[in-house]
Amino acid sequence: MDQYDAFVKIAHRLADAARPVVRKYYRTAVAVDVKADASPVTIADREVETAMRAILAEECPDHGILGEEHGRHNLDAEYVWVLDPIDGTKSFIVGKPSFATLIALCHNGKPVLGIIDQAITDERWVGVSGRKTTFNGNPVQTRQCPALNQAIFFTTAPELFRGPQIPAYEAIRNQCRQPMYGVDAYAYGLTALGLADIVVEANLQAYDFCALAPVVEGAGGAMCDWRGNALTMDSDGCVIAAGDRACLEQALEITRTSLP
Amino acid sequence: MDQYDAFVKIAHRLADAARPVVRKYYRTAVAVDVKADASPVTIADREVETAMRAILAEECPDHGILGEEHGRHNLDAEYVWVLDPIDGTKSFIVGKPSFATLIALCHNGKPVLGIIDQAITDERWVGVSGRKTTFNGNPVQTRQCPALNQAIFFTTAPELFRGPQIPAYEAIRNQCRQPMYGVDAYAYGLTALGLADIVVEANLQAYDFCALAPVVEGAGGAMCDWRGNALTMDSDGCVIAAGDRACLEQALEITRTSLP
Repeated sequence: MDQYDAFVKIAHRLADAARPVVRKYYRTAVAVDVKADASPVTIADREVETAMRAILAEECPDHGILGEEHGRHNLDAEYVWVLDPIDGTKSFIVGKPSFATLIALCHNGKPVLGIIDQAITDERWVGVSGRKTTFNGNPVQTRQCPALNQAIFFTTAPELFRGPQIPAYEAIRNQCRQPMYGVDAYAYGLTALGLADIVVEANLQAYDFCALAPVVEGAGGAMCDWRGNALTMDSDGCVIAAGDRACLEQALEITRTSLP
Repeated sequence: MDQYDAFVKIAHRLADAARPVVRKYYRTAVAVDVKADASPVTIADREVETAMRAILAEECPDHGILGEEHGRHNLDAEYVWVLDPIDGTKSFIVGKPSFATLIALCHNGKPVLGIIDQAITDERWVGVSGRKTTFNGNPVQTRQCPALNQAIFFTTAPELFRGPQIPAYEAIRNQCRQPMYGVDAYAYGLTALGLADIVVEANLQAYDFCALAPVVEGAGGAMCDWRGNALTMDSDGCVIAAGDRACLEQALEITRTSLP
């Protein structure tokens, strides 16, 4: 038995616990609070994270937890769970099923397990370091796309980018075959399925991106920060994921020019 | 029996015929052709429209048909069906379930019946002139949103807009509470459900917008062109839909400034 098998089982339990809560509040008139960083939060976000934390407290009390809604716990632990109960809260609020529950496990800061779970469309991506990524239990593979000008490009919104990031984003978008918008973590899932080619985003938090790297990489793709470094819990939140490493390298040539 | 009952029944048959074809090709490696207007088309688009046209040929041979993929037939007829077998072909190709089959019936050029059908998530909006719009059989209602600065705003992509349309789009987007991107006709469905507030798009074709007006209007909203005129098959493809007419009027003040 692989060292991660027990953790994968726990991660599935977390995602299973999230689904009924997400479904209960989906397209209901949930109150929306605005957090200090101006991002929205609902009772659904909070209840999902509470349900997941209860399982972790029971199953692995010595692990750390970094959650979007309920804060930090024991981040110096060897293993830290990084949780975004509803990534794409704005999509959740408008009733658009492209939000996802994101569950990551980091080992010494590096994401080694990731789940992207969509409760409404019943879709679950599972990525584990050294294993083939699965989608609803079946192995998936990214597609070849050696050049940016052949790529279907995703980003959630042009407003993600700031200052010198804006011309870098625009240069990549303009070189790609087709820009697409608006689907949060789901875009990384589509890349893992070999249906999209590259995702570029900026100013994300650890809970937005940690779960995505094992999913994309286990499907044959690559994901890193705008410098080309592997992602960790402490990365700066500027990320690129691509199904084909050659496409990623072309994008990195552009993002590197925007960095201090 | 209302004069439209028979037509509503036919429209449901068209949507029912579309679903198995859409599902058969969803997330398969369909070949993508590029049309003269640079938009993509797949065998799924063509087969869906063929299936719908076969039903219309049998049920109402004296009606006209305007379809995205298989052209124009008898457009001078009193009743004309306007069909977009897959609105959001780009979303369909990347496996993002925000595309839709759009079915409209126009009477003397004016849309009087519209269906938005999403085959993967099993969602169907039906709007009929003078009746309450339904979503999966249940009546729906837009929400109040009297001011742009309270509105959740949707557009499919910034690239839709050209020339003097761009500053008008940007002014509306900047006044709104929150911009959202990327979901084609689905955004109008969310507006009908009272989950989003305003959609602004430009340079659409009749088959992109005719089905949407009866859906939005029958839910209590309003939809028109950038001048404020009611939509017809001959409208110029610059459209605004809003759940609250007051919000629409504010947006019209901006769009009118962009017009020749």
